[in-house]
Amino acid sequence: MSSIISDILNIRYPILQGGMAWISDATLAAAVSNAGALGIIAGGNAPAAVVGEEIRKAKKLTDKPFGVNIMLISPHADDIARLVIDENVKVVTTGAGNPSKYIKAWTEAGITVIPVVPSVGLAKMAQRSGAAAVIAEGGEAGGHVGEITTMALVPQVCDAVDIPVIAAGGIADGRGVAAAFMLGAKGVQIGTRFLVAKECGIHQNYKDKVIKAKDIDTIATGKRLGHPVRSIKTAFSRGLFAKEYDSAISNEELESLGAGSLKLAVVDGDNENGCFLAGQIAGLVKKEESAKEIIDDLIAGTKAVLGKVSEEFVQKGQG
Amino acid sequence: MSSIISDILNIRYPILQGGMAWISDATLAAAVSNAGALGIIAGGNAPAAVVGEEIRKAKKLTDKPFGVNIMLISPHADDIARLVIDENVKVVTTGAGNPSKYIKAWTEAGITVIPVVPSVGLAKMAQRSGAAAVIAEGGEAGGHVGEITTMALVPQVCDAVDIPVIAAGGIADGRGVAAAFMLGAKGVQIGTRFLVAKECGIHQNYKDKVIKAKDIDTIATGKRLGHPVRSIKTAFSRGLFAKEYDSAISNEELESLGAGSLKLAVVDGDNENGCFLAGQIAGLVKKEESAKEIIDDLIAGTKAVLGKVSEEFVQKGQG
Repeated sequence: MSSIISDILNIRYPILQGGMAWISDATLAAAVSNAGALGIIAGGNAPAAVVGEEIRKAKKLTDKPFGVNIMLISPHADDIARLVIDENVKVVTTGAGNPSKYIKAWTEAGITVIPVVPSVGLAKMAQRSGAAAVIAEGGEAGGHVGEITTMALVPQVCDAVDIPVIAAGGIADGRGVAAAFMLGAKGVQIGTRFLVAKECGIHQNYKDKVIKAKDIDTIATGKRLGHPVRSIKTAFSRGLFAKEYDSAISNEELESLGAGSLKLAVVDGDNENGCFLAGQIAGLVKKEESAKEIIDDLIAGTKAVLGKVSEEFVQKGQG
Repeated sequence: MSSIISDILNIRYPILQGGMAWISDATLAAAVSNAGALGIIAGGNAPAAVVGEEIRKAKKLTDKPFGVNIMLISPHADDIARLVIDENVKVVTTGAGNPSKYIKAWTEAGITVIPVVPSVGLAKMAQRSGAAAVIAEGGEAGGHVGEITTMALVPQVCDAVDIPVIAAGGIADGRGVAAAFMLGAKGVQIGTRFLVAKECGIHQNYKDKVIKAKDIDTIATGKRLGHPVRSIKTAFSRGLFAKEYDSAISNEELESLGAGSLKLAVVDGDNENGCFLAGQIAGLVKKEESAKEIIDDLIAGTKAVLGKVSEEFVQKGQG
């Protein structure tokens, strides 16, 4: 299974592993790349020295291409923007902002640039700035999310830009991959399912929460602040949600309540004060597997669904 | 193009027109049924006498099956539950509540019962109560919506029930229909695109708003009240959204602010005080067409996408 996305990225399958702050390190990214998809190291808010170490570690773990995700609101964004050039990284994805000012330098350095976009307007801006593709991410995804869902967003972005579109949000098995292709995507980005990859180093409490989650078990907090974040429902995240409706709590106070909570989830597995980011599709994720098992299952599932459904609906209707 | 859903409903195509309060009347429902899909008359909050008139009118306009949507929080729900039996209606869909107490009487009367569900839990309850199928509706839909999106909800509901699943929310062309099939749905329900059917009698201002809407132009209000409603962004709906974050405004006051605003949109085209319900996929809806043109386009688009995508991704990969 291939597409223009796997061709551009020089990988076997048109699947990207989402860049998840504090989570997507060299070990996970290299395992994903070795299995034929594109592993991505997340810069998050980490300083360039830390990200550089992960990049060099990944190079030792895989000879396949991998990417780096740069969170543009990070105080270290400028440093990491230079680092990916110095380290000869093949692919950069960007989130939480407008990467236009970096794109020229990156493309001149041979880097394939793929911004994550939550809307048609930002997709068009990415194309104008010289992006090679865009990741259209629906609001059902985990972490920082937009408002428009994958089902509504992907076809509208496909109609608006000429560069290839990668779908993200709500995809965790072959059904989701096949659906994304139908919507016009040429590839997919998957985050939540890789949370439970054996090579993913998050605390076991975090993995357990993803595996136990049902469809209704995530919540988007921070809508009042204009930058919602989706996580698994806990006393902590429900409390955050309730506080948004309390006018006595200032926006500054509200912002400060979430600070540090992702690290508490990832590193300490803190069930009380951690913020366990995950997408709505967590309800479909049932077991820990290796990155290779996950990717092989995604590919086999996609092929099975593509073949079966076309036969079921169209050929029967034509008979 | 057919499926178990078109077989059960005795219609040509596995497509349902969403029951939209104040909007889906006999004229729209009959036009949809005549074009080979299932038209649905919306009960909304109307008294049984009004709904009965629409049912009898639809029978004169089509000899094909059509359905009635019963909003279970309507004060007239009990009356309409009896009416559909007396009038020998073929299909009942239900929204905004749990239809369990009516299902036995309906199925004994030969009615095919299909509840709209926003979660796996309610889908399982519908199956236990004897529903023939469920409509899994994602939160990108217009009107009263749940939290879980179509992409995340449909496969999880398919895994949880044995009855056929119909996908709704975010579907307005063949790409969406094909994607829904990939997720495991055996049919689709479409609302927003039928708002601009020539046979849809809403005010021209309403149709113009749907046609002009971009991807980011809808908003879900009422989350603080626990029953969000998606509409096109206007000064009125933005105002409602902002007031939700003002603790000085009571829930009762907040509820009362929306009252009557749908009628103002549908009947009067009131740009100031109307509430123009629509889904996120409104950005994809570009022109007024007859119900038959819409349905023919959906079918042609679905077949084209199903054929093309399977060839592009799988056969290339196997070569």
